[in-house]
Amino acid sequence: MDPNSAAAQVAQQFSDFYYQSFDNNRTALNNLYRPTSVMTFETGKFTGAEIIEKLSTLPFNKVQHKITTVDAHIIDPATQTLLVMVTGQLLVDDEQNPQYFAQSFVLVKEETSGSYYISHDLFRLNYS
Amino acid sequence: MDPNSAAAQVAQQFSDFYYQSFDNNRTALNNLYRPTSVMTFETGKFTGAEIIEKLSTLPFNKVQHKITTVDAHIIDPATQTLLVMVTGQLLVDDEQNPQYFAQSFVLVKEETSGSYYISHDLFRLNYS
Repeated sequence: MDPNSAAAQVAQQFSDFYYQSFDNNRTALNNLYRPTSVMTFETGKFTGAEIIEKLSTLPFNKVQHKITTVDAHIIDPATQTLLVMVTGQLLVDDEQNPQYFAQSFVLVKEETSGSYYISHDLFRLNYS
Repeated sequence: MDPNSAAAQVAQQFSDFYYQSFDNNRTALNNLYRPTSVMTFETGKFTGAEIIEKLSTLPFNKVQHKITTVDAHIIDPATQTLLVMVTGQLLVDDEQNPQYFAQSFVLVKEETSGSYYISHDLFRLNYS
């Protein structure tokens, strides 16, 4: 498989896991972040354990992401670091009107395990 | 200025220049890309000179971007490489209804000039 196809496949699998976990079993996201990871979530910026704290205390009971696009670029071939941008919609609690969102990740391959973790995460709702 | 504030300032200045140029003087974007730059624009992927060709032949006469958010992370402190995510709306030609978009850039500082160029660019309209 050529490197770009492999990157696209990693990004799709990552996205599937990330949003399924976010919606159904959010604590499973813990394993994706490291103490050095940085997240922008709307206007807040969080590092390491703060990220899990933030994600586990969001002020809604249920959320459902519907993914529209997942794109990936290899930003460092030597380390197989990927930039992934996701766009889609989300529904919170019993709201009827979905909100658009965009989220960008930098995924870094861990040499020992061969799996990817999130070094950077930028999330924004997209509205005027 | 602390590094994160400096990065935020670079990202804001970049965004101002990028979208003003896009809307009013698109050829000025040429200087921001390099032969190794990669762009995803909707479903297409473009490299180097293909990027300028694509941006200069988009099928509309006028476009207006309205930027809502600009966020930046330093993804490599050694080289001052930045991840920038922009969300906003755009109006094409005489349409009355803006479209949401999200765009992510990797900006790399050029040692010789001290200015930043775009190594990666992912653009997506955000709709269901």
